[in-house]
Amino acid sequence: MPAILLSIGDELTLGQTVDTNAAWLAEHLSALGIACLEHRTVPDDLDVIAAAIQQCAERAGTLIITGGLGPTDDDLTRPALAKAMGAELIEDPASVEHISAYFRARGREMPDRTRVQATPPQTSTMIENTRGTAPGIRASLGGCDIFVTPGVPREMKAMYERDIEPAIRQSADQYSGVTRTILTAKINTFGSGESDIAEQLGNLMARDRNPLVGTTVSNGYVSVRVRSEHADPQQAETMLAVTMKQVRDKVGPLAFGHDDETLQQVVIDRLRGSRKTITTAESCTGGLIAGMLTDVPGSSAAVLGGWVTYANEMKTRYLGVCSELIEQHGAVSAPVVEAMARGALKQSGADFALSTSGVAGPGGGTDAKPVGTVWIGLAWREGGAVNAHRFFTNLAGDRATIRDRSAKCALQLLRLQLMGQDVEHVKWATRA
Amino acid sequence: MPAILLSIGDELTLGQTVDTNAAWLAEHLSALGIACLEHRTVPDDLDVIAAAIQQCAERAGTLIITGGLGPTDDDLTRPALAKAMGAELIEDPASVEHISAYFRARGREMPDRTRVQATPPQTSTMIENTRGTAPGIRASLGGCDIFVTPGVPREMKAMYERDIEPAIRQSADQYSGVTRTILTAKINTFGSGESDIAEQLGNLMARDRNPLVGTTVSNGYVSVRVRSEHADPQQAETMLAVTMKQVRDKVGPLAFGHDDETLQQVVIDRLRGSRKTITTAESCTGGLIAGMLTDVPGSSAAVLGGWVTYANEMKTRYLGVCSELIEQHGAVSAPVVEAMARGALKQSGADFALSTSGVAGPGGGTDAKPVGTVWIGLAWREGGAVNAHRFFTNLAGDRATIRDRSAKCALQLLRLQLMGQDVEHVKWATRA
Repeated sequence: MPAILLSIGDELTLGQTVDTNAAWLAEHLSALGIACLEHRTVPDDLDVIAAAIQQCAERAGTLIITGGLGPTDDDLTRPALAKAMGAELIEDPASVEHISAYFRARGREMPDRTRVQATPPQTSTMIENTRGTAPGIRASLGGCDIFVTPGVPREMKAMYERDIEPAIRQSADQYSGVTRTILTAKINTFGSGESDIAEQLGNLMARDRNPLVGTTVSNGYVSVRVRSEHADPQQAETMLAVTMKQVRDKVGPLAFGHDDETLQQVVIDRLRGSRKTITTAESCTGGLIAGMLTDVPGSSAAVLGGWVTYANEMKTRYLGVCSELIEQHGAVSAPVVEAMARGALKQSGADFALSTSGVAGPGGGTDAKPVGTVWIGLAWREGGAVNAHRFFTNLAGDRATIRDRSAKCALQLLRLQLMGQDVEHVKWATRA
Repeated sequence: MPAILLSIGDELTLGQTVDTNAAWLAEHLSALGIACLEHRTVPDDLDVIAAAIQQCAERAGTLIITGGLGPTDDDLTRPALAKAMGAELIEDPASVEHISAYFRARGREMPDRTRVQATPPQTSTMIENTRGTAPGIRASLGGCDIFVTPGVPREMKAMYERDIEPAIRQSADQYSGVTRTILTAKINTFGSGESDIAEQLGNLMARDRNPLVGTTVSNGYVSVRVRSEHADPQQAETMLAVTMKQVRDKVGPLAFGHDDETLQQVVIDRLRGSRKTITTAESCTGGLIAGMLTDVPGSSAAVLGGWVTYANEMKTRYLGVCSELIEQHGAVSAPVVEAMARGALKQSGADFALSTSGVAGPGGGTDAKPVGTVWIGLAWREGGAVNAHRFFTNLAGDRATIRDRSAKCALQLLRLQLMGQDVEHVKWATRA
C-alpha cells in the first residue's frame, strides 16, 4: 500500500521555506519498501487541510502529515483532522501532563495556550514528542493509517524514528503478509550530457524494468538512479547489485562515484591513497577548483595550495609564464595553460597541477575565442620528468555555469589521469 | 485566481532530491499577488501525471509544472499533458531548429533522441529554453493556464523570468479588470542574525502593515523583503520608497545591497569606482573569496589574483610569513593572518589584501581553537604606509558553512572599510 506525504503551512505554499521533510520521509519510507504516491503541500486553512486529508486518505495506505500542530491560531492541523474524521477534539490528560513536565524540566510554567496541543480528535492517540512540546497524533480514516508530526525537522525525525517507523513496519507486515523491499542507489557522472548517457544505457532504461533505471541532471552532473523492488530483501539486493554493475559497465569511466560522493572527494581520496599532492593555477575559474578541493575534510593532506593568477602579470611573476608567450598566443591558449600548470608544479613541488584560462563572459569574447572557450592544463611528475596535457573545451551557459563546469571538467580530467584512464572519455573536452 | 505547482519526478517522490523549485516559484508568484493553493509532487508515471494535471487544472487559474521534459524514456510530462488535454503530440519545426542550433553552437550534432523534446501537445506552444535543450510548454486546459518547464533550476528560473511571469501578469490583469499593483523590493544584509535584524526593524514588521515587511534567511544573508500593494501604481511606488528608507535607516551599514545584488558585486563595484585593486591569501577558505570576487563580470579590472596557502610552507615561501611566527602562535592566529595579508599586499602590489586562517572542521579543533575559530586579516595602503586589521570570529555549523560564512565575513569587512564605516557593526566578527 503506497503512502502519501502531506505538508502543512503558509510558509511552504508562500515559498518562504523549502520543504525538506518530504524528501527525508520519502527516503525513509522507500527504505521500508513503501513507495510515495504523492507529496502534497497546502496552506494554513482549515477546510483546505481537511479536504486534503480526506482525499489523501482515500488513496493511500499510510498518510504522514507534518506541520500545523503548534499552539498559535494559524496551527490548524488538529481541528482539520478532526473535521476530516468527523470527530470531536478531546483533551488527553497524559499529554497535558507530559507538556507541563516538559516546561517544568526547563524551570518554566506551561503557557496556557500550549494546552490546546494536547487535544487530539476522539479515537486517535497521541505520539510523544521527545524534542518539543507539540505531541504527534496517530489516527485511522477509512483504512488509512494517519500519522501527524510537528513541522520542525528535528522533532519530526525523532518522532518518526522512535514511534512512526515501527508502527508502519508492523502494519505493512500485517497487511501484506510479506513486506516488499525497495533499495535505491545512484551513480554520478560528469563530462557527458544526459542524452548521451541515456544512449549508452540503452534498454537498461526501459520503464517496465525492475530494477528501474533513470537519470537526473544537477549542476552539470548526470546521475543514474537505480531502484530495486522485491518481496525478498536478499533478492532486492542481488538485483540492485547486478543492475549497478551493468550501469557502471555501460557508462564507463565518466562515472566518478556513488550516492552522495562528490567529484572532489573522489579526487582527494585518490590523491591521499597514493600520497600525492596537488596545486592549482587558476585564471578563469578564479579559485573555484581550489575551493572545491579544500571543501573536502582532510584535504590538507593532499592540497598544498595554489594561485589565482587573474592578471597576466601574476601569471608571469609567480608561475614563470613568459610574457612573450602570452603576447604571442593570448592568455587563453594551449601554450599558456600548459606553462601555468608546469610553473605551478615547479614552484610548489606538488605532484599534480591543474590550470585554467578561458573566457567566462559575458564580455571579452571574440570571433576566434568566443565566450565559453576554456583551456585546461594538467601537469604531473613521472619518473624524473614533468609531463603536461592541454585540453580545450567550449562550454555553454552564463558566467557562473562556464566557470563551474570548467572547474569540474578539470577535476574529472585529473581523476581520469590518476586512474590511468583515457581522458578522451570526457565528451566535454578534447586534448590538444 | 490561485495557482497550483506540480513537480514531476521519481527522484522527488523517492526523496533523493529536495524540491527547491516549488518554493522559488511560490515566492515569485506571491510577489505577483498570486497565492498558491497547493504544491503537488508525483512520480514518473504517465497516468498518474495525467490525472494530477487534470485535477490541478480544475481548481487553479494557473498551473506550473516542473520536470519530466528531458529526452529520456522516464521523461513523461509531455505525453501526460497531451493525455490530460486529449491532444496529439505534434513536432514543432521551430523548436527542432532551435535545439539543433543549440548543439551546432557547441560544435556538436543534435543527438536523435533530443528531437522528441520539440513535440508539444497540439494547440499548445513551446517556450524557448535559453539555458538548455528542452523547451517549455504553454497550454490551456478548461480555463487554466498551464506552463511547463524543465526541472533543472537554472533552466526553470530563466524560463519563468523571461516568458512565464510576463504571461501570468498579463492574464491576471485581463481576469481582474482592475490591476492592483504589487511592488516588491529586498534589502540584503550580512553579519547579523535574523532575530537581531527583526529587533532592529521593530514594528515595521507588523503583519497588518502595508507595505508589508518580512525577513528571510538564505546562506547566511538576512534579506528584508518589502511588499507594497495599491490600486494606484504611483501610490504603491511612493509607499515602497518610504518603507525602504525606513528599513535602511533601521538596519544600518550591514545592508549591502538591493534585490539580487550580491556582496561580491558591491565590493567589486566599489573597488572599480575608486580604481583600487584586491588580492587574497586564503587558508581555511581555500579559494572561496577569490572565487566569489571573480564571479562578478568585469572583476578582472579589480582582482589581480591571489594565493591559496593551505600548507604552512606555502604561507612562508610565497607570502613571506616567518615560520617562527607560525610556530609561536599557530597558523590560526592574529599575527599569522596579519602577516599573510601584508605579504600578499606587498607581493602583488594590490591596494587591498584579504586573508583567512581558521579551523573549518570537522577535525582539527582543540580546546583553545575549536572548530569554527577563524581569523580574518585585512591589509591596505594608505599614503605611503601599509595598515592592517585582524578580526576574530567564531562560527557555527559544518565545514561548508564555516568556510562560506568566513569568506562572506571577509568581504563584508572589506566593504565596510571601503565605505569608511566602522567594522564593529559586523556582529559576527570582532577586531583584535
